[in-house]
Amino acid sequence: MYGVRRGRLRDRCAATGSAAALISRPANVRYLAGGAPPGAVLLLGPADDVLVCPRKPTGDPADGRPDEGLRLVVMQTPAGDAAVAATELARTEGVESLAVEEHHLTVARHRALGSVAPRLRLADLGLAVEQQRIVKDEDEIACLRIAAEITDQALGELLESILVGRTERHLALELERRLVDHGADGPAFATSVATGPNSGRTGHRPGDRRVEEGDFLSVCLGANYRGYRCEIGRTFVIGTTPADWQIELYELVFAAQRAGREALLPGTAYRDVDHAARQILDVAGHGEELPPRTGHGVGLEIDEDPQLAPAAMGKLDACVPVTVEPGVHLPGRGGVRIDDTLVVRQEADGGPELLTITTKELLAL
Amino acid sequence: MYGVRRGRLRDRCAATGSAAALISRPANVRYLAGGAPPGAVLLLGPADDVLVCPRKPTGDPADGRPDEGLRLVVMQTPAGDAAVAATELARTEGVESLAVEEHHLTVARHRALGSVAPRLRLADLGLAVEQQRIVKDEDEIACLRIAAEITDQALGELLESILVGRTERHLALELERRLVDHGADGPAFATSVATGPNSGRTGHRPGDRRVEEGDFLSVCLGANYRGYRCEIGRTFVIGTTPADWQIELYELVFAAQRAGREALLPGTAYRDVDHAARQILDVAGHGEELPPRTGHGVGLEIDEDPQLAPAAMGKLDACVPVTVEPGVHLPGRGGVRIDDTLVVRQEADGGPELLTITTKELLAL
Repeated sequence: MYGVRRGRLRDRCAATGSAAALISRPANVRYLAGGAPPGAVLLLGPADDVLVCPRKPTGDPADGRPDEGLRLVVMQTPAGDAAVAATELARTEGVESLAVEEHHLTVARHRALGSVAPRLRLADLGLAVEQQRIVKDEDEIACLRIAAEITDQALGELLESILVGRTERHLALELERRLVDHGADGPAFATSVATGPNSGRTGHRPGDRRVEEGDFLSVCLGANYRGYRCEIGRTFVIGTTPADWQIELYELVFAAQRAGREALLPGTAYRDVDHAARQILDVAGHGEELPPRTGHGVGLEIDEDPQLAPAAMGKLDACVPVTVEPGVHLPGRGGVRIDDTLVVRQEADGGPELLTITTKELLAL
Repeated sequence: MYGVRRGRLRDRCAATGSAAALISRPANVRYLAGGAPPGAVLLLGPADDVLVCPRKPTGDPADGRPDEGLRLVVMQTPAGDAAVAATELARTEGVESLAVEEHHLTVARHRALGSVAPRLRLADLGLAVEQQRIVKDEDEIACLRIAAEITDQALGELLESILVGRTERHLALELERRLVDHGADGPAFATSVATGPNSGRTGHRPGDRRVEEGDFLSVCLGANYRGYRCEIGRTFVIGTTPADWQIELYELVFAAQRAGREALLPGTAYRDVDHAARQILDVAGHGEELPPRTGHGVGLEIDEDPQLAPAAMGKLDACVPVTVEPGVHLPGRGGVRIDDTLVVRQEADGGPELLTITTKELLAL
């Protein structure tokens, strides 16, 4: 499987006139190598493919296991730069043009590569690997499905516990512990717990505020399973009966999120998914408070292409996992965010596959 | 204070022929701006200093508060690139030469800066800010001192709990929760808990192995307090009586760590601190199993200059906080690491100031 992925990239690379490519962005290395210790880079050579590692792979499950089709080179000087070592290797193998990831290499590192191999032409691989990663195979989707199950379990347990009086920070740590309890390799991203006036804010970092009666409570979390990351976001009310404004706002955001989910079909433009959700909030007069996008791809990174945003170019394919996460935050009052991870599927296959199945009713906790 | 820091950098920058500098590396932005929302960059202009933010600062304590001496510019398009926006601003202000952080900017971003301001000469600021950050002022050291107190408290509590049967992952999460309990803004880095054959391994990522009788247990953790990060590492034995090889190995690593600590004086070469610790392990026949360095600077990042390593150039100054963390890992058996954070002080001032005060006796838990 990894060999096939590397084969596709090599063809693409050859078409741009480079017989070899240096992959340095960690998620791209993992996608093509199966697994790699931190700091490793992948050299797609004209002959064989070499994984250059600062130190021996430890067998740490979080790193994954390097594909057997790879030649493993462990550097003599662990403090050194694997990209530089790989470039020297390419030079000794007589490579003339090496495609590198200019969106990942720093200017200083790129210069270092040039200086160890002055005759080597450094081309730009661009986002070739990221583009190849957008459409997932069923093995990848299976990992995302498990990550989503773990995430639903962790969230479900939290809902059964007492929340009033606990701080955002503690609830976030509690959720991350439960993710690991249920088999996650770790959280997919920093868990967000937002209470009262903070609720509904995208990417709010948990603070010392405690949950109070009458609060909106919005949480956003996800599991990392075998490197694959999903995301769920829910908003709850604390106390027996939500206020009218809370019910209205919740129903509005729920309607927008449903519209976004229902727009997830192969062939739909990214921006049209965003528009489907955004216009509902816009019409209701919340155009100002809206985040710049409605969702994004997920996979080996929590924030991948496609971007579901007004200016995004491109159309959805089948087997692309994305989040749909509209939200409204009213400064000083708080707000609502509802966030699911789904996989785009053909209508004949039942349409979008919802991975995060925790209820989206407005729960009063 | 932040104004003074920016003033020093501006002088240095002017000396290299650039009237303006673009700071993009997050820790450097925070150092010079006091605080900044994620994704913000700092433009040291010829006239005033501008903090360009993708969105309004939220007042999140983890971000810190931007210094009042700064002009705040919030971008219209949050999805856009703050470095590009700052470069356009520099152009409109008639800047001719802009020093940028080529060790942080990617090749692709650097090109983007060039294309929004073709007439602007992009120079390299190099590691100017990182070098300025090496020697800390007393406010910074005060934050590190608090971070160390929090870390000692979290570790102390763990030692009072039952350990046998618990997994590395759970102990690590428990420690991180306790850090936050005691006032940390978060962990300074991913907490490492290593048991049995994993013990003593630098940067071991906690897995599913459970603590067993007779194990070595090594932990490495640290608090992030107001952005400042410290580090402590300790190794314990599980059970009533350590084996002879465990006692011998522990005493050896302890002797090496003490030698390293005692070498921490202004004027001592970085490599001599490393040598002081390394030779003791080397003579004992562990030269092979040693990590590439004995310690490193800490501050706004957990891994800063100086590097205490065989090939490191330079000498210690007073008020430089560093770790001293030698360790030996015997493949298949495990090992010992002992890690403290200290501040280099003049002998007249009592010599190195130990921030992490948890006992280094070999405890049998």
